[in-house]
Amino acid sequence: MTKRSFMELQLPRGMHDTPPEDKILRDEVIEIIKTAFEAYGFNPLETPIVERFEVLAAKYAGGSEILKETFKLTDQGERELGLRYDLTVPLARYIGMHPTIKRPFKRYHIGTVYRDGPIKLGRVREFYQCDADTIGVRSMLADAECLNIAITVFSKLGFDFELQVNNRKILNDLLTKVGLTGETAYEALISLDKLDKIGEDGVRNEMIEKKIPLETSTQILQLIQVEGERESQIEAIAKHIPESTGLKELRELYLYLDQPDRVVFTPRMVRGQAYYTGTIFEFYVKNAVSGITNAFGSGGRWDDLISSFLGSKDSYPAVGVSFGLEPILQELKARRSETGLAKCVTKIYVIPFKSIVSEGRKIAQQLRQAGINTDMDLAGKGISDNLKYANAYAIPYVLIVGPDELAQGKVKLRDMKSGQEELLSVFDVIRTYAIQHK
Amino acid sequence: MTKRSFMELQLPRGMHDTPPEDKILRDEVIEIIKTAFEAYGFNPLETPIVERFEVLAAKYAGGSEILKETFKLTDQGERELGLRYDLTVPLARYIGMHPTIKRPFKRYHIGTVYRDGPIKLGRVREFYQCDADTIGVRSMLADAECLNIAITVFSKLGFDFELQVNNRKILNDLLTKVGLTGETAYEALISLDKLDKIGEDGVRNEMIEKKIPLETSTQILQLIQVEGERESQIEAIAKHIPESTGLKELRELYLYLDQPDRVVFTPRMVRGQAYYTGTIFEFYVKNAVSGITNAFGSGGRWDDLISSFLGSKDSYPAVGVSFGLEPILQELKARRSETGLAKCVTKIYVIPFKSIVSEGRKIAQQLRQAGINTDMDLAGKGISDNLKYANAYAIPYVLIVGPDELAQGKVKLRDMKSGQEELLSVFDVIRTYAIQHK
Repeated sequence: MTKRSFMELQLPRGMHDTPPEDKILRDEVIEIIKTAFEAYGFNPLETPIVERFEVLAAKYAGGSEILKETFKLTDQGERELGLRYDLTVPLARYIGMHPTIKRPFKRYHIGTVYRDGPIKLGRVREFYQCDADTIGVRSMLADAECLNIAITVFSKLGFDFELQVNNRKILNDLLTKVGLTGETAYEALISLDKLDKIGEDGVRNEMIEKKIPLETSTQILQLIQVEGERESQIEAIAKHIPESTGLKELRELYLYLDQPDRVVFTPRMVRGQAYYTGTIFEFYVKNAVSGITNAFGSGGRWDDLISSFLGSKDSYPAVGVSFGLEPILQELKARRSETGLAKCVTKIYVIPFKSIVSEGRKIAQQLRQAGINTDMDLAGKGISDNLKYANAYAIPYVLIVGPDELAQGKVKLRDMKSGQEELLSVFDVIRTYAIQHK
Repeated sequence: MTKRSFMELQLPRGMHDTPPEDKILRDEVIEIIKTAFEAYGFNPLETPIVERFEVLAAKYAGGSEILKETFKLTDQGERELGLRYDLTVPLARYIGMHPTIKRPFKRYHIGTVYRDGPIKLGRVREFYQCDADTIGVRSMLADAECLNIAITVFSKLGFDFELQVNNRKILNDLLTKVGLTGETAYEALISLDKLDKIGEDGVRNEMIEKKIPLETSTQILQLIQVEGERESQIEAIAKHIPESTGLKELRELYLYLDQPDRVVFTPRMVRGQAYYTGTIFEFYVKNAVSGITNAFGSGGRWDDLISSFLGSKDSYPAVGVSFGLEPILQELKARRSETGLAKCVTKIYVIPFKSIVSEGRKIAQQLRQAGINTDMDLAGKGISDNLKYANAYAIPYVLIVGPDELAQGKVKLRDMKSGQEELLSVFDVIRTYAIQHK
C-alpha cells in the first residue's frame, strides 16, 4: 500500500507502540491500581522522565549495575542528564529537595522507566512501574497497607492470589544464630535467594565455595524452609531467635491484615535488592491462565535508602509496594482471549443515510451526551462498507439512521455480534444501553 | 533539617516536579479531555517517548528549527535516538508502519514531549500535549468534531469561551486573487500571521521589505479583516473568490457545529505551522481569571504531512485538535485560588485511640470499601498532632475513634473547616458522605 519510504520506519530497539487494543486494557488496569492507591490515601506525585545524571548515579544499592543500563543525554548547556531507571531515586531526590515536607508522606507514581539493557526475551527498554510508598512511618500499619492494597487490587482484577511475606530481620537474625555475620551473611543471602532456581544442592555448593561450612548451610536451609501453619512456623523459628524484632514485626503485621489467610509467611523469601531492611513481600497469581509463575508485584521496607542516598544522618523509614503491570496485562489478555479484547472505545457506531447526515450527527451527539462513546460514519461510505468498518474495530452496536424510520421517530439498532436488529427511539437506545451497563 | 548532602540536589533545567496538589488537578483535567475524546470515538494510542533520530529528523515542515531543540541520545548499540518533540511525528511513523490499518483511524494521545529550547519565561523542557486526530477523512464532519469536542471540554471545565475558525484555502485563494503566489504568498502569510503582534503598519512594512506592493498589502489586509455577521463576512469575501473550496468547506463546517454561535469566523487567523492545509482553529477563554490571552487549544487540517513524511504518493487526509494543558491548569488554579486546591486525595482521616488501633483500621477499611479515600494515623501520634497533620494536607474530615464512643457504636466526625463535630455510626458517616458527593 504505502510506497517504500526514504527511510526504514523503525522503533528504537526494545521499545514498543501500544495500539488502542492494548492501551485500553492498560488504562483499565492503571485505573484500578490508581483507585486502590488513592483509597488508602496515597497522593499522586509526578517527576520528570529526565533527571540529572549525578542524581541517578548517587551511591545507592545496586547503583553501579543499573548505571550501565542508564540512557545518558545532555542538554544545550552540556549538563549531563539521564532517563530515570526507576521511580524510587526520583522520590528520594524529591524528599531531599523538600526536607520540611510533612510526614508521613504517602505518594504513588505510575510512570515509565528506561533501561538500556540487553534485549533478551521479554526485556524491554521502556516499561511502567506502579509504586506506592509511605515515608516516615516505622509502624507495621504502613507495611500492612501495602498488602491490603494488593488484596484490593487482585480482588478487583478477579485473580485468585497468594501473598508471600517475610522479614529481612528474621533472616539476618537466623544467619547470626548459625554464626554468619557481616560480609559472609550477605554472601549467604545471595545464595539463599537462588533457592528456587538452583535447589538445595545448588545453594549448598555455592555456600561451600563461599567457605561456609556444610553444617551451617544445612542448618540455615532447614530453618528457612520450615513448613506448616503460620503459628507453628513462627514458633519453630522463635525457638532459635526468641528475641528477634523481625518476628515481633511479623506478628504485629498479621494483626492489621484484611485477609491474613491469603498472606503466607515464607521464611525462605529473600528478595534480591540489598536495600530492604524489614518486611518483604511478593504477590503470586494462582492458576494463572497465562502460565506466568513470576511475581505480579512485590515490595518491602527500605528504611535506610533515602538517608544513605542523601548522605544524611536523618532517619527516613520507608515502605512501599509495586505492581507489575506487564504480568497483570498478560494474564488479563489470556483470560479474555475467548471473549476478545476491546479493540476500540466506541460502543455505538452511527450510520446515517447520505440525505440526513446532519440528523445522524445530532443523534450521535445525543448518545455522547448520555455518556455513550459514539462514533459515526464520517466518510459517507455505504451501509455494507460501514458494517465492515464496525466489524473491523469490533464495535458492539451500529445505529442505522434512515429517512423512513426517522419519520416515525425511530432508528435501527443492530447488535453486531448476534446480527439482531431492533427499531427503537433514540431515548430507548440510551435507556437500553444504560440498563445494560449499570 | 537535612544535612547538606554530598551532591546538590537539582532537577534538570526547565524540568519540574508535579507535587500532589498540581498532579491531582492535572489528572482531573486529563480525565475530562480523555472522556471527551473517547465520547467521540477516538482511541488511545501510546508511542514510546524515545524515537529513532532519523524518524524525528525526517523532512517535515518546521523540522530544521525544531531539530535544534531535540534531545539526542544513543543506546548501547550506538543507534541515534531522540526524545519526541511532539505527538504528530510518532503518529505519522505509526501510520507508516501500519499501512493496512483500517481508516478512518481516530486516535488520541495525551503525553509528554521534550524540547531542549532556551529557558525563557514559561518555556519548559518537558510538557504535555493532548491531541486527537482523524486520519483518512476529507469530510468537514471530521473538522467539526474537533470544534464540538472543544465545546464539550470547555463547557465541562465551566469556562466561557470563543472558538475562532478559518480555512487556509480561503487565505490562499485571497492571496492568489491579489496576485501573490508561490514563495511570495508564503512570505505574505508569515507576515500576516504577525498582525496581532506588530499591527497593520508592521505587516505592511514587512511586506514592503518582501517586495510586495503597498497596494497589495492594503488590499489583503482589508480582505482578511472584514467584520460583521458571519454570513456578511462570507459574502464579502465570496465577492472576490466565489469559487473558493475554502469557503465551501467553511459553510459545510458550520452545518455540523453544536454551537455555531460560539464559533467565530476569523479570516485573519493564519496559524504559524506551514503544514496546515484547510480548516484551522484556535480556542480562547473569555474573561480568563488568570489573565491568559493566548489560545487554550488549537488545531486544523493537515492533509499533506503524512504522505510527505512517508515520502509516499498515497493520500492521508488528516485533521486534529490539541488542548493546551498548561493554560487550562493555570486558569483553573486562578479560579480556585479562594476555595483552595485539593492538597491530597484523602477525604477522611481516621484517628484511633492507641488502645483500639485495630478497630480504627477496620473502620478505615469500611470507608475505603464504600469508595471514600481514607487515610489513618499510622504513627501513633496524639490527637493534636494528628489534627495538625490533617490540617497541613487540608483533609476535609477527621474521624476520631475513641473507646467510649465506640462502645456505643459511634465515632466522632469532625468537619475540619467549621470545626463542628458529630457523633455518628460508621454507616451514617458513609451515608452522609455519599449524599454530599452524589
